[in-house]
Amino acid sequence: MADDKKLVEAITSMEEDFAQWYTDVVKKAELCDYSSVKGCMIIKPAGYALWEQIQQQLDAKFKETGVENVYMPMFIPESLLEKEKDHVEGFAPEVAWVTHGGLEPLQERLCVRPTSETLFCDFYKNEVQSYRDLPKVYNQWCSVVRWEKTTRPFLRSREFLWQEGHTVHATAEDAEARTIQMLNVYADFARDVLAIPVVKGQKTEKEKFAGAESTYTIEALMHDGKALQSGTSHNFGDGFAKAFDIQYTDKDNTLKYCYQTSWGVSTRIIGAVIMVHGDDSGLKLPPKVAPTQIMVIPIQQKKEGVLDKAYALRERLLKSGFRVKVDDTDKSPGWKFNECEMRGVPFRIEIGPKDIENNKCVFVRRDTREKTEVALDDVEAKAAELLETIQKDMYEAAKAHLESHIYSAVTWDEFCDTINNKPGFVKAMWCGEQACEDRIKEELTATSRCMPFEQEQLSDTCVCCGKPAKKMVYWGRAY
Amino acid sequence: MADDKKLVEAITSMEEDFAQWYTDVVKKAELCDYSSVKGCMIIKPAGYALWEQIQQQLDAKFKETGVENVYMPMFIPESLLEKEKDHVEGFAPEVAWVTHGGLEPLQERLCVRPTSETLFCDFYKNEVQSYRDLPKVYNQWCSVVRWEKTTRPFLRSREFLWQEGHTVHATAEDAEARTIQMLNVYADFARDVLAIPVVKGQKTEKEKFAGAESTYTIEALMHDGKALQSGTSHNFGDGFAKAFDIQYTDKDNTLKYCYQTSWGVSTRIIGAVIMVHGDDSGLKLPPKVAPTQIMVIPIQQKKEGVLDKAYALRERLLKSGFRVKVDDTDKSPGWKFNECEMRGVPFRIEIGPKDIENNKCVFVRRDTREKTEVALDDVEAKAAELLETIQKDMYEAAKAHLESHIYSAVTWDEFCDTINNKPGFVKAMWCGEQACEDRIKEELTATSRCMPFEQEQLSDTCVCCGKPAKKMVYWGRAY
Repeated sequence: MADDKKLVEAITSMEEDFAQWYTDVVKKAELCDYSSVKGCMIIKPAGYALWEQIQQQLDAKFKETGVENVYMPMFIPESLLEKEKDHVEGFAPEVAWVTHGGLEPLQERLCVRPTSETLFCDFYKNEVQSYRDLPKVYNQWCSVVRWEKTTRPFLRSREFLWQEGHTVHATAEDAEARTIQMLNVYADFARDVLAIPVVKGQKTEKEKFAGAESTYTIEALMHDGKALQSGTSHNFGDGFAKAFDIQYTDKDNTLKYCYQTSWGVSTRIIGAVIMVHGDDSGLKLPPKVAPTQIMVIPIQQKKEGVLDKAYALRERLLKSGFRVKVDDTDKSPGWKFNECEMRGVPFRIEIGPKDIENNKCVFVRRDTREKTEVALDDVEAKAAELLETIQKDMYEAAKAHLESHIYSAVTWDEFCDTINNKPGFVKAMWCGEQACEDRIKEELTATSRCMPFEQEQLSDTCVCCGKPAKKMVYWGRAY
Repeated sequence: MADDKKLVEAITSMEEDFAQWYTDVVKKAELCDYSSVKGCMIIKPAGYALWEQIQQQLDAKFKETGVENVYMPMFIPESLLEKEKDHVEGFAPEVAWVTHGGLEPLQERLCVRPTSETLFCDFYKNEVQSYRDLPKVYNQWCSVVRWEKTTRPFLRSREFLWQEGHTVHATAEDAEARTIQMLNVYADFARDVLAIPVVKGQKTEKEKFAGAESTYTIEALMHDGKALQSGTSHNFGDGFAKAFDIQYTDKDNTLKYCYQTSWGVSTRIIGAVIMVHGDDSGLKLPPKVAPTQIMVIPIQQKKEGVLDKAYALRERLLKSGFRVKVDDTDKSPGWKFNECEMRGVPFRIEIGPKDIENNKCVFVRRDTREKTEVALDDVEAKAAELLETIQKDMYEAAKAHLESHIYSAVTWDEFCDTINNKPGFVKAMWCGEQACEDRIKEELTATSRCMPFEQEQLSDTCVCCGKPAKKMVYWGRAY
């Protein structure tokens, strides 16, 4: 059965070349494909089903906090994009411009939205009149375009899918509270659904969103020790409100500017799922987000009764609410095992003539490969239990990996050595000056990932310049 | 309570000016709004929630038939769009062109997808190698852009949301079967979920999709007697496969061209829901698709216990799986009634101190305004019953309207008189020549809606030219 190994052999090992491993997994697990539109990807059924799971579950969390979904145009007139100075500076260099509609040139260029702050502001300007209209807590699921030079599937592409929440509030306090609330929704979702532990904190001035007063982030650590910014939440203060003239009449009958936020998670987070959990056999999907949670693989399926038993198992498990499939193709069992591992199905059930005789089947976990015999009568209960265990164990494994890859450095030498030789997050003190961030980026290709909410006083001086320290920062190389 | 009438008074009556009534309802029911991007709309929470219901339920139906969702790029390189001759002729005049990425001009123009046949073909060309790879039954939910000159909310806008299914098959028979299958999914969905009866049939050569071998359609009749094409399903034969060189190796080891289909439903169908069911008080939403199915309206809500009882009712109804809200704003009950009618909530529950004393509440139907006293203990059962009744009655009312507005004409004079004086569908025989369609369009501003599957032989000659008739056609004025 040399064939059975083909899928696996075709993958580069993680240790050998992590970047190539990533590309191989994305391709072999059939998550996405390149298109003939440079820098844009095709999200294939397995990848899109994963996005649907993420979308549905995150959307439900949003709605619990009062979010309402809307849809804004995909085009932004150039004059609208230009209304907020920092914002346009940040985005104008990387947008796609529509200049012709049908056969005629447009009077004003339209950019394809790279993000929709300006459209929401333009809308809120008319929609919000009185304190009674506040807050508005809107979100949209859509695709956005940023004309990136170098692209990688899910991590950086010219078009990607995301959600962008845009809210407007009466007070600065309300806006800050919503900003933090949504960051926590993201962090909890990463932990509870994606089994990904994250570091929560604030971005530095240099790294914050164009036009924001403050940007908060969840940072995850990939298997190779590089960081991935996995979700951000921005507090705009009244900056956009002043640029777009969004005012409301308060209870005291005076006109006041509104306060705004925005927050987003994109298909990039699929990259995090791949790179946090995957191994040399392919994807490993956390049960809560796996489009297929259980794959039933019949052994000697041509023998009478085997396929029937496999289908019966599927029906029972479907009825209990699991996402389950039977692989009844004419491939060999070994091939099916490999394929099912490549695609990250949390566990498979093997069932053959001998199992049926003994009224049992075999559960094989994707994460640990552990095999357990299960009496056919107990299948539902044991499946529920195992999915829960896998979800928990995957989180614990990721957490252990994260924790064992957080270092701290006090001196510049320590810092350089750690960044260069120990992939992971490096905690170090910072004076607050961009010059030090710039030097670290230039010399070490590392960036400030965030100023974590949980601050420590590692020393009194900046790791880079030696001046008095203001903040402890998580530094790292990042995607 | 003069205030209570405001919402309603602001609406133009349907009989007076149907077009203005439509615009008023869209605006007052807060379904959508104009944007500062000419011809593009903003879909507001009430409108988007309706789309989410449509999307979720239709998507579930798709998946039952084996459809898998994917996501293709939103851009199409000009050279790709041009590969199928009829297709590019049909779409090129109305697409938006991206000419610059960031600060630089593109080497090749990209159009924003008006539809994605060309992208799917380009993908299938590599994806399909063997008969084992067939069929592929993919769909995507996305927005598309067509540079329309005149636009109307939901009915015709430069950008709209839709789903587009694209399938590829081994044989012509398989493709035809899938084309009809999806048309039936649409027709059943319109009937069972949207309470809209439709006429199913085939489009004429003149009206078919650019590049299709045959186009099938579901046509609905609006309250004003105009038709609305509400969903289409196209059989491409092997035309696109030949243009894009999509071939597979069959079991007999020979190379064969594939056969393809595509099918779509858009936010346009929200226009159908509005114009089939609405009345002078606003929207009327079929229970199955209403984002809010029941509105609980407390009467004298400041009296002790009233709001608590309203909330308790909501909790009970939510637990039973209904989509229910309490209107606990400080507006007057009369205002709330009007607002709830404007928004099309299928029925409201009124509950005040006297009701509570008598352990009852009052159900008021949106469609008939009928009031029923309901014992508080029976609320869940009676609510389920009433929603079912409303769904059924709304369908019956729409069906009666449709049936009473289908006319037939044998002579040209009859035909002209009916088209001009009796808004609705006119059945008439047709020779099959486009010249007659052109004349009918020019002289009567009516179009062939479809050649219905259920053919009748009204006479032997074409209603227009008198030559031998080939088909019975449904004619009408249309949106």
